[in-house]
Amino acid sequence: MHRPLAALLSISLLLTAQDPPKPIAGFTPAAARRQLELESKFDAALNRQNLQQWMKRITSKPHHVGSPGSREVAEFIAAQFKSWGYDTQIETVYPLFPTPKSRLLEMVAPTRYTAKIEEPPIEGDSTSSIKQDNLPVYNAYSTDGDVTGELVYVNRGLPDDYDRLRQMGIDVKGKIVLARYGGSWRGIKPKVAAENGAIGCLIFSDPQDDGYGAGDVYPKGGYRPQFSAQRGSVMDMPVYPGDPLTPFKGATDPNRAPDPKQAPTVTKIPVMPISYGDAEPLLRALGGPVAPQAWRGGLPLTYHTGPGPAKVHLKLEFDWKLAPAHNVVARMRGSEKPDEWILRGNHHDGWNFGASDPVSGMVALMEEAHGIAELAKTGWRPKRTIVFLAWDGEEPALLGSTEWAENHAAELKRHAVAYLNTDGTSRGFVSISGASTMELFAAQTARDVIDPQTRVSAMERAEARRKADGRPPEYRIGPLGSGSDYTVFQHHLGIPSLNFSFGGEDHYGVYHSNYDSYDHFVRFVDPDFQYTLATAQLGGRMILRLAEASSLPFRLDPLARSVRAWTTEVVKLTDDLRESTKKQNELIRGGALKLAADPRLTFIPPEPKPEVPHLNFAPLLNAVSKLEAVTAKASKGTVSDDALIRAEQYLTQDDGLPRRPWFRHVLHAPGFYTGYGVKTLPGIREAIEQRNWPEADAQMLRLADTLNRYSAFIEAAIR
Amino acid sequence: MHRPLAALLSISLLLTAQDPPKPIAGFTPAAARRQLELESKFDAALNRQNLQQWMKRITSKPHHVGSPGSREVAEFIAAQFKSWGYDTQIETVYPLFPTPKSRLLEMVAPTRYTAKIEEPPIEGDSTSSIKQDNLPVYNAYSTDGDVTGELVYVNRGLPDDYDRLRQMGIDVKGKIVLARYGGSWRGIKPKVAAENGAIGCLIFSDPQDDGYGAGDVYPKGGYRPQFSAQRGSVMDMPVYPGDPLTPFKGATDPNRAPDPKQAPTVTKIPVMPISYGDAEPLLRALGGPVAPQAWRGGLPLTYHTGPGPAKVHLKLEFDWKLAPAHNVVARMRGSEKPDEWILRGNHHDGWNFGASDPVSGMVALMEEAHGIAELAKTGWRPKRTIVFLAWDGEEPALLGSTEWAENHAAELKRHAVAYLNTDGTSRGFVSISGASTMELFAAQTARDVIDPQTRVSAMERAEARRKADGRPPEYRIGPLGSGSDYTVFQHHLGIPSLNFSFGGEDHYGVYHSNYDSYDHFVRFVDPDFQYTLATAQLGGRMILRLAEASSLPFRLDPLARSVRAWTTEVVKLTDDLRESTKKQNELIRGGALKLAADPRLTFIPPEPKPEVPHLNFAPLLNAVSKLEAVTAKASKGTVSDDALIRAEQYLTQDDGLPRRPWFRHVLHAPGFYTGYGVKTLPGIREAIEQRNWPEADAQMLRLADTLNRYSAFIEAAIR
Repeated sequence: MHRPLAALLSISLLLTAQDPPKPIAGFTPAAARRQLELESKFDAALNRQNLQQWMKRITSKPHHVGSPGSREVAEFIAAQFKSWGYDTQIETVYPLFPTPKSRLLEMVAPTRYTAKIEEPPIEGDSTSSIKQDNLPVYNAYSTDGDVTGELVYVNRGLPDDYDRLRQMGIDVKGKIVLARYGGSWRGIKPKVAAENGAIGCLIFSDPQDDGYGAGDVYPKGGYRPQFSAQRGSVMDMPVYPGDPLTPFKGATDPNRAPDPKQAPTVTKIPVMPISYGDAEPLLRALGGPVAPQAWRGGLPLTYHTGPGPAKVHLKLEFDWKLAPAHNVVARMRGSEKPDEWILRGNHHDGWNFGASDPVSGMVALMEEAHGIAELAKTGWRPKRTIVFLAWDGEEPALLGSTEWAENHAAELKRHAVAYLNTDGTSRGFVSISGASTMELFAAQTARDVIDPQTRVSAMERAEARRKADGRPPEYRIGPLGSGSDYTVFQHHLGIPSLNFSFGGEDHYGVYHSNYDSYDHFVRFVDPDFQYTLATAQLGGRMILRLAEASSLPFRLDPLARSVRAWTTEVVKLTDDLRESTKKQNELIRGGALKLAADPRLTFIPPEPKPEVPHLNFAPLLNAVSKLEAVTAKASKGTVSDDALIRAEQYLTQDDGLPRRPWFRHVLHAPGFYTGYGVKTLPGIREAIEQRNWPEADAQMLRLADTLNRYSAFIEAAIR
Repeated sequence: MHRPLAALLSISLLLTAQDPPKPIAGFTPAAARRQLELESKFDAALNRQNLQQWMKRITSKPHHVGSPGSREVAEFIAAQFKSWGYDTQIETVYPLFPTPKSRLLEMVAPTRYTAKIEEPPIEGDSTSSIKQDNLPVYNAYSTDGDVTGELVYVNRGLPDDYDRLRQMGIDVKGKIVLARYGGSWRGIKPKVAAENGAIGCLIFSDPQDDGYGAGDVYPKGGYRPQFSAQRGSVMDMPVYPGDPLTPFKGATDPNRAPDPKQAPTVTKIPVMPISYGDAEPLLRALGGPVAPQAWRGGLPLTYHTGPGPAKVHLKLEFDWKLAPAHNVVARMRGSEKPDEWILRGNHHDGWNFGASDPVSGMVALMEEAHGIAELAKTGWRPKRTIVFLAWDGEEPALLGSTEWAENHAAELKRHAVAYLNTDGTSRGFVSISGASTMELFAAQTARDVIDPQTRVSAMERAEARRKADGRPPEYRIGPLGSGSDYTVFQHHLGIPSLNFSFGGEDHYGVYHSNYDSYDHFVRFVDPDFQYTLATAQLGGRMILRLAEASSLPFRLDPLARSVRAWTTEVVKLTDDLRESTKKQNELIRGGALKLAADPRLTFIPPEPKPEVPHLNFAPLLNAVSKLEAVTAKASKGTVSDDALIRAEQYLTQDDGLPRRPWFRHVLHAPGFYTGYGVKTLPGIREAIEQRNWPEADAQMLRLADTLNRYSAFIEAAIR
C-alpha cells in the first residue's frame, strides 16, 4: 500500500474535520465532541509571541534559586497569573543551598596547569558575557574540601568501572578520580568514588558525548564548546531530594542556622565539573595502562587510567546558607468538584539563563494558563480545580517542589488527582512518561496535538519514529525515574504523574551551561517556538481533559500489564544473573580469565561469587495474577473517581524502600546507583542486583502484600 | 573445580613427559611417539638469535618488489637455504608494477593546504630516515590522473555508505571522495567510488582505528602517528590477483612492453592514501550535513559529509614498468613419496622495511627450514618433498606467488598436498584458518606448541581467550578470504591451504608504513622473538607431520559440517533479506521513514525493493545431505592419499565464479565487495546479496552439482 505524505495529511485533516469524534476516555461521545470544541478554542487563544517574549525576558539574567533574578522571575510569573484572574500566591520555602566561595583546581605534577573553570563569552550570545549574579561552574552539595592527590581516570565512575580498575590492580584509595559525565546521574559518581576511598572527584564533559562528537559546537552549532562545563547537583537524591536538613517536612523556617554536617545527602568528598578544555591537559598527563576500549572518548589522545603521574590539587569552599525558594501557586477553582485538584508544574529557576532548561517548559505552562484564562473569560469554568505551579530551586535538588509538597502533603493526598510536569521542551517527537494508569490518557492527548512540522498527529509522528527505529510501534508509557519535580508527587506521595515534552531534533549540547540561552534556543532548539507551542497544546489538553472528564480517565489494565512485564523482567534478571555468575565463576576457577589476559599487564581476576539461589517468586506471581483479574473485572464495571484518586496511594508503603524510606512507591524509584534512571519493582530489583537474597525475599513478600492490598481496594470499589 | 595456573602448568608438563602419546592424525600410536620425538629435536635446533639477526638484516633497507633491496634479500635467503643443503633456485617473474613518478594533493578551496604525504623520521627509529629506494606513500595500481573536484566524505566508502548519501541528497558524481580505511579491503573503496561516478579517491587512516584511539602512538607506543599513512594495493584483486596483464598465466617474459590500459584490474580513478594529519584540514573544511553518528571518527572535529566547500586537486603519475619479482624456491626431496609436495611460503617483500609484515613470518619460515636441515644432518629425510617458498611482490598484488603458481599450475595440481602460509606474526594467541579438511590437523599442531608466556598449550590459551570472550570454546577452522599468498593455491588451484600466525597482544598500528621497522618490532610487536619462535615451532610441526604421516591427516567430516553451516547461513540470509525487505518497504510505502526524518534536513527515502522470492534450495540441501552421508562413510573407512590430494580440486569449477573466472573454488572466495573478507558459498551468497535471483538459482544448481561430483569422487575412493 503506497501512502505518501500528502495522503497522510489529507486523511488526518479529514479525520479532524468531519469524522465522528474520536473517543476520549472519561467523556461520553457527546461530551467528547464538546470537549474537542473547547480544545479548539483553547488552541485559538494560544499565542507564540508570548512564548518568545516571556522566554527572552526570563532568560535575560541569571535566575537560580536564591538570586535576585529568581525572585524577579517568580514575581513576574505571579503577576501574569494574577492578571489572568488566577488566585495566585508566592509560597516561599527556605532550604539549604550552597554556592561557591572559592574554587581551585590545579595540576601540580608532572607539569603545572591551572584549570580555567570559567565559560568565556561567545560571540552572538548576548547573555554569555553577563557576570552579575552568574553562578560559576560547580556541583551543588559538594562538600567543602582541600585535597591533593594522584589522578585516576575512572570512565563513568560507576561500580562496574571500579571493578574493572581493581582487575587492573588500580586502587583509588587516597586518589582524586576523573570521571566522564554520562552513564548515570552525576551524583552517583562522587558517591561511588567515596565508597571506593577516593578523596576528590572531577567530572568532565567528554566531547564525544555532547561536544564536537555530537555535532558542531556553539556558536557554529548547538553543542558544547571547549571550555563549557556542566553544572549540576551531586546531592545523594536517590536517598531523598529536597532540603537535606528537612526530609519529610517542608523547609518553612527561614531563621534556622543550617549545619551542613547534619546533611546526610551532601557528598562525602569534594566534587567539581570541568570542561573538556580543562580535562585535556589532565588526561594527557596520566600514565598507567591504556584505558579499556569502551572508556576512550573523543579527545585526540590515548586515554590512560593512571594513577598519576598527574597529581592535582582541588580546593572548594562553599557558602552554606538557606536560600528562599519562591514557588508560584495559581489556582482556578473548580465549579463542580473544587476539591479535586489537577496540578500542573514546571520549574522557573535555571543554572544561570536556562532557556531550554527550564524556561521553554515554563513559558509553555504559562501559555496554557493564559489559554485557559481566555476560556474562562467566556464564562466557562473547569469542573475540577486547576493548580499551576512554577517551582523554584529544581536544579540544585528539586527544592521548591519537594519542600512545598512535603508541607502540603496531607491536603495533596486528599485532593490531588494528578500531577502534570514539564521541564523544558524542544523540536521533535512527543514523549510522555508516567503512571501506567494514565497510558490511554497520554496517548489520546498526544493523538490530538498536531505536529507542527509535518501536520500529522504528534502521536503518529512518534509512532513513525519508533517504526523507523525498529521498535514496537505501539505507544507504551514508560515509568518515571527522577530528575524533575514530579519526584515528590509520584514517588513520595503516590499521586499519579506524567512528565512530557517534545524533542530529538534539537541540537542541544549546552545542558547546565552558561550557553543555555535565548540566543542558543532560537538557533538550535526550537527556532520559531512551534514545539513550545505544541507543548502548551498538549499540556492544555491534559489539564482540560482531567478537569472536565465526567469520570476520571485512569485505566487499570495498563497498570496490570506493566506490573506483569516488570515481574517477568525481575524473574529473568535472577535467572540471567544465576547463569552469568555460574559462567563467570567457571572462567575464574578454570583459569581461563587469567590465561586469556596479557601477561605483560596487571590482571587480578575477580573472586568467584556465591551461586545465585532460586527465589520464591510465587507470592509475587500470585499477587500479579490477582491484580490482572481485578483490573480486568474493573474494566468491565466502573470504579468511582474517589477510589481512583486514592488508588495510587495504595501502591506506596509508609516506611518506603530499604535504606531510603522517603521513596514510598513500590513500583518504581530512581535507581540507587543510576540516579535519574528508573528501577521498576525497586525493592526486589535492587536487592537482586546487589545480590542481597534475604532482602530480595523480604521485599518480594512486601510487594506481594502491597499489590494484594491494592487489588482488594480496587475490587471493593468496583460497581 | 579450582585449577590455578600452577596446576595447569604441571598438568601440561606431565602430559608432555609421561602420559601416553597424544594422538596425531595420520600416525599410528607408535609413529606418533616417534614423531613427537622428532619434533622435540626440531625444537631443540631452533635458535631465537637467528630470528633477530635475520630480521635486523632484512629490514635494514627498503625491499619492495623491483628494488635492489628485494634482490639482495632474495639472494640472502637463497644463500641461507643453500647453505643448509636445500636444492634452491631464485625463480624470477616479471609482472607489471607501477611506482610513483609524481604525487600531489592540495586543497584549493576554501583555504589552501598542500598535503605532506610524507612520513617524517622518528627519533629512536633508525630506519625511518632512510630515503634511498624508499617508496613513498601511495596506492599501487591506482590509475594516473589529474583531477580537481569538491570533496565528499563517504565513511568507509562501501555500497551502503553511498545509499546513505543518496538518502541525504548527496551525489558523488564528478566529486573526489574521502574515505576512511577499514570496513573492507582498501581496493573496494576506489572501485565503489568509481561505480558511483566519483573522479578521485583519498583514503585516510582515522586515529580511532589505529592511531591514538587504539593506543599510544609511535614512538611512545606502537600505534600510527599523525603523519603516517597506509600504503597498499588498490588493484581489483577480487577479480584476479597477480600481474594485471597475464591472468591465468605466469608473467615470465621480461621483455614485454606493458600497457596499463589493457589492465582491467587497475583502478578507474586515481587513488591516494593519506595520514590523519593530512586528512584533518580537509575534514575541517567540509560543509554540508553532519555525518551520520557511525561515520564519525577520532579526529577532534565534527565530521561533515560535504560536498564542498572543500575542493581538492589530486595529481598522480606512475611509472608503469615490469618489475622482476624474485621468488626463492628451496626443496628437500622426499625419501618415500618425492612426488607429494608440502609447500610452505611467506613473502619477503615489504612496503619499505616491513619488519612485522612480512619479515616476522619470513624469519620464522627460514628457521623452520634451518631446523629441518639440522634434522637432516642426522641422516633423517622427510618421506614427502618439502618446498620452502619466499615470495616477492606480495604487497602490490600477490605477484610472486600468483605468477609462480600460474606458471607451475599443472605440476602443482598433480603434486601439491597442501600449502602452508604465514604473512607475519606477533605476540598473543594462535590463529589458524584454511581448508576445513585440515581442521583436526591444525588443532593438533597448535595443541603441541607451548605458549611462551604462559607455558600452556597454544591451543589451550586460545581456547581460554574464546571462553573469556563468551565465544564457543571449541576450535573451529575458519575459511580463507584473501590478502596473502595462499590465494592462488586455495582459490585458484584448489590446493588445501592454511594460514597461521600468533597475535592479539602486539601494539601494532603502523601497518604498511615506514615505521613497520625493526626498532618498532622489538618494542611493540614481539620484543624477544618468543612468538616468532613459536610460529616456527608451529610451522615446523605442520611441515613435519604432513611430510611424515603414513596417511594424510585430512578429515572430511569437518568439511561436511562447514558446508552444512554455510548452507544454513545462506538459507537464513535469504529469509532475513525477505523479512527486512518487506519491513523496509512497509516503512517506505507507509510513509513512516519520511515522517520520522527531520524536515530541516534533506531526506530522500529509498525506493521500495522487489519482494525477495523463495528460492529452490532443495538441490543444494540434497547435495549437502549426500556430502554428509559420504563423509560419514569415509570416516569409517579409509580414503587413499592419492584421492585426498586430488579431492579439494573437485570443489573447483573450471570457469570459476560469475564475472571472475579466476576464482574457481565453490566454497569460498574473497568478497567482491569486501576484498579480503571471505564469502562462503560465494556464487550463491553474492547473488543473494546483490538480489540477482536468476543467478542465485543458477549458482545453486552449479554448487549442488559440484558437491555431488565431489561426493561421488570420495565415495568411489573409500576403501
